[in-house]
This record gives sequence, structure tokens and C-alpha cells, in this order.
Amino acid sequence: MTEAEGEFELINRFRQLARHHPQVVLGIGDDAAAVAFSRPHDVLVAVDTLCEDVHFRLSETTPRLVGRKALGVNLSDLAAMAGLPKAALVSLILPHDRSPDLAIELFEGLNGLAEEFDVAVIGGDTNSWNGPLVISVTVMGEATGRGPVLRSGAVPGDLIMLTGNVGGSSSGRHLEFTPRVREALVLQERVELHSMIDISDGLAADLHHILDESGVGAILSEANIPYSREVLAIEDRERRLKHAFGDGEDFELLFTVDAADAEALLEQSLFEAKLTRIGEITKETGCRIKRDDGTIETVASLGWVHQ
Amino acid sequence: MTEAEGEFELINRFRQLARHHPQVVLGIGDDAAAVAFSRPHDVLVAVDTLCEDVHFRLSETTPRLVGRKALGVNLSDLAAMAGLPKAALVSLILPHDRSPDLAIELFEGLNGLAEEFDVAVIGGDTNSWNGPLVISVTVMGEATGRGPVLRSGAVPGDLIMLTGNVGGSSSGRHLEFTPRVREALVLQERVELHSMIDISDGLAADLHHILDESGVGAILSEANIPYSREVLAIEDRERRLKHAFGDGEDFELLFTVDAADAEALLEQSLFEAKLTRIGEITKETGCRIKRDDGTIETVASLGWVHQ
Repeated sequence: MTEAEGEFELINRFRQLARHHPQVVLGIGDDAAAVAFSRPHDVLVAVDTLCEDVHFRLSETTPRLVGRKALGVNLSDLAAMAGLPKAALVSLILPHDRSPDLAIELFEGLNGLAEEFDVAVIGGDTNSWNGPLVISVTVMGEATGRGPVLRSGAVPGDLIMLTGNVGGSSSGRHLEFTPRVREALVLQERVELHSMIDISDGLAADLHHILDESGVGAILSEANIPYSREVLAIEDRERRLKHAFGDGEDFELLFTVDAADAEALLEQSLFEAKLTRIGEITKETGCRIKRDDGTIETVASLGWVHQ
Repeated sequence: MTEAEGEFELINRFRQLARHHPQVVLGIGDDAAAVAFSRPHDVLVAVDTLCEDVHFRLSETTPRLVGRKALGVNLSDLAAMAGLPKAALVSLILPHDRSPDLAIELFEGLNGLAEEFDVAVIGGDTNSWNGPLVISVTVMGEATGRGPVLRSGAVPGDLIMLTGNVGGSSSGRHLEFTPRVREALVLQERVELHSMIDISDGLAADLHHILDESGVGAILSEANIPYSREVLAIEDRERRLKHAFGDGEDFELLFTVDAADAEALLEQSLFEAKLTRIGEITKETGCRIKRDDGTIETVASLGWVHQ
């Protein structure tokens, strides 16, 4: 979800207000939260809500794709933890003036993706009102390997890696993407993932989340940014970069690993999605980019590049 | 939440559409869902959403009480499974034109109740729009004792028991109730709870949920219905019954146990809340009530009594 700056602050406020509990392995502030239950096993859970006329327009898409996306964004959050999704709950607020078929179609779209990932839809809540459609999904899963991969583990010298391409998702990919759950599990099995996030707010904003949580900086290389087909069609270099950094909803995985692991990953063909090294983590904070002409510029968290 | 008849049907449709998974201990259709993770421990989870001008009006209450209620209704769902709540996630849709304090106050109200029950607020999602306030809470917990108490376990001969009083919650109790989490845990420890539900839709509707899921009927006694203070103030006997059966949002526990266990519970004073035997489970389906004048009438699921 694209979140405004003030909402990031709000999440930080919640984080401060929330009492510490020993059972919280990971609380507010990452892509999913992990709770230690009485058995020592990490249960992952994430929630994400889609609002009509904010995240989608029913005039431009189908309820099935909306339902599919509502689960997809949550599975993407679990993928960002290298989690194995297990179960989902769906909360709907249905407009009074719409046909009851709307809810069924939403559910069918969601359930299709659930079956693809062996996720059980186990419950939820339905309400109706004189307002727009709202669909909120909660997904639960298990941590794998060395445990959930956090935003906070990047260290200087790590290489910054990205699955797939970025930018231009609003032309349709933001509704039909396949969350990178399988890719995350393969990566978690092969290497030690230091930090990871999924690209929902945009490459720049999400990289900044990793940098902020890890207390590090980054230097990117313009030549290595993997532009989507839609972005490649843009002639202007500045606009191209702006879209790649700022569009969001790519639902690709952005992660950091040490140099040797990065090399190993790039040498193998682990999965269909391409894997690109886009930069390096630095001790010096802030995010910079080495442009094709050799100049170094600053990348703001909202995706703007400033000289 | 008060749900219309068509929404119960919708939930049944979802139940049919949802694929069976071996990890689902309890799927769509009860107060909470239970999932078996790779360790053999039942994780309980429930989600419930409150919508402005549907479930509350900000002109009539405070954001703190709304936040408190949003968690409370979920804790009540966990109580109905005799579950021990552990963690909650909060999803907010905030109106653009309201102060950011709104979200903080909501959170503080919610967090107060969370601390009272040692529940960790571990994450969530925030969005904003040109629409009314929406707050959706997901709560997770653990099953206790012999496992989650379902709606489907009532058997003929069981006595039907109720904590507290019913009716008239709209005068304020629906916002300030304390979910019966502790009472449920005490009950689960002392006796074998055959079936249990919390009164959200109304005594009649929720009893019907137990009867439908268990394939049994019930005979109630008018003389034993524990009216709230607000309902006792009503002179007309029919209206009194109608409010007690139909108002909903009492968030009391309705459960069935065998006769010996019911006796044992009634003889002891296990907790502050009163405990009343209101009727008996019958093999014959349907819900009937023995009126004070000796006549037997039918109780419909919407709370109406028909001769």
C-alpha cells in the first residue's frame, strides 16, 4: 500500500505506545509480525486493507482481481519475511447497493490465489454499509530457515538485490502480480538473507525502510536498475528513474546479502524471475545513486533524485 | 456484530467454497478459527471490523471507546472458544478530514484493554480516504484445556447457561463491556464445556447458531432469563423479552454443559459475574420458551416469540 509520510510516523507512534511483551518476537514496524506461542515456533501474521477508489476502481477492474490482490499483498508481506503462508482471514465491508455476487466474486478471486499457495481461508467477518467496498485480509504463516528476515539486518558491504523489474505497475501488474513467496523460500534456503522487504511503497521508499531500520546507507547504480517494459517505453531518463523508484506496488523482493552470497545467487538460475544486483550497502547513511554520466545524486524516500 | 440473515448465508457460501486443508482445525463458521502449525498446538485467530455510523457514531462516543470496543469484540470471540488471547493487529481506515489524534486515541483505547488482558498489539495497517472511519482488529490466541470450545458440541440433556444479563446494551454497555475471557478460562478449567458462543447478534440468534451447528433444539424458561437493568425497567412483558432476545452486543457467554456440571457450577461462586441456567437442550430441533403462564411458544432466530 502506498502510505503517506504521516502514516509512517503514525506507525512509529503505535510502536512507542505498544507495551513490550516477552512473547513478541517482532512487533509493529516490519512487513509481518512474529509471535512466540508456548511452543518455540514463530507464527507470522500480517494484515492489509484495500479500499475502493483508493487502491482500486471497480469500473477499471473485476471483483475477482480485487480479491486476488487483497490476498496477494499479504502473501507478499509474508514473502518479505521468507515466511511460509498457511492461513488467511477476510474482512469485508460491502456497499448496500451492490449485488451479493460482489462478495462471492471477491472471495473466488482470493481463494484462487490461496489455492495456488496452499493457503487455507479460515474465517473472517462481513459487514455492509452505504459506503465504498473495503476488503481486509489477515494472513498467518510460519517462519522458515534461520527465522523471519527483518528490515533491520543490512550491514555495510552487503550487496542490494532485487527480483524482477520495477515501475509502471499501475498499468495492470499491481492487480495481477504473483507474490514472490516461492522465490523468498528458495533464497532463504540458499543464502543468509541479511534484510528483506517487498516493493509496495516504491523502490526508493522501501529501500529507505531497510536503510532506516538497519542504520546504514546505500549507493545504487543507475545502469543496473531493472526497468519494467512500461518504464523502458519512456524516453526521458529522469522520468524513467522517477517511475522505477516511485511507482510502487511492484511486489518484488528487495534484499541484502554479503558479497559472496550475492555472487553465488547471480551465478545460478534459481527461479524464473530475474535477479539483479542494484547497489551496495554503505556505512555512510542516506541513499545515493551513481548516474550513467558518473555523477552521484541523492535518492529521497519518495523516489525523487536530487543532485 | 449484528449480521443480517443474508450475511449468514454468505458465510455459509464461503464455507462451501473454501478448500479443505489438513492444517485447518476449525475453519469458517465459528467465533474463531484454529490452525495446526507444524507443532501440535492450536493457534486461535479472529477478525472483527467496526464501521462508523454502522457500529458507532463519533458524535455519541469517544475514539477511545471505539478502539476499546474494536479489540473487545475480538477478545469476546476468543473467550467464546475458551481461548487465551495473546496478540492483536489493527487495521485503520481514517477519514481525510479528521485530526491525526483520532488514530492515536483509537489506539490508546484499544491498547488499554490489551494491557488489561496481557495482549500484545503487534502490527497492523493504516489507510486514509474521503470516507467514514473503519477499524478492524485481528486477534490471535491459544486454545486451552481440551481445546477450543465449538458451537457444535451441544447434546440433548445439556443445560443452557448464561453469564451476566441480556438486553439493552445499546444504552452504553455495548461500548464499555469487559470481554468474558477470564470467566471462560475458569469454566474451561472446571467443567467440560460442550458448546459455547458469545452474545453478539442477540441471545436468540446466537442460541440458534449453537442449535443449528449441533443439530439440536432448546426449551427455555421465561422465568429464568436474566434481564439487564435497562430491560427490567420496561413494563411490557413482550417488549422485555424482545429486547433480551434481540438486542445483541451483550458479549456474555452462552454455553451448554451436562446436568451434573451445571449443578456444580451453580453451587460455586466461581467469579463475580452471575451465572444462570436458562433452559435445556432437546433432541427435538427448534427453539421454544415456556412462558410464565405455562404456554409454550417458539423463539425465532431474530428474537421474536411466536405462539
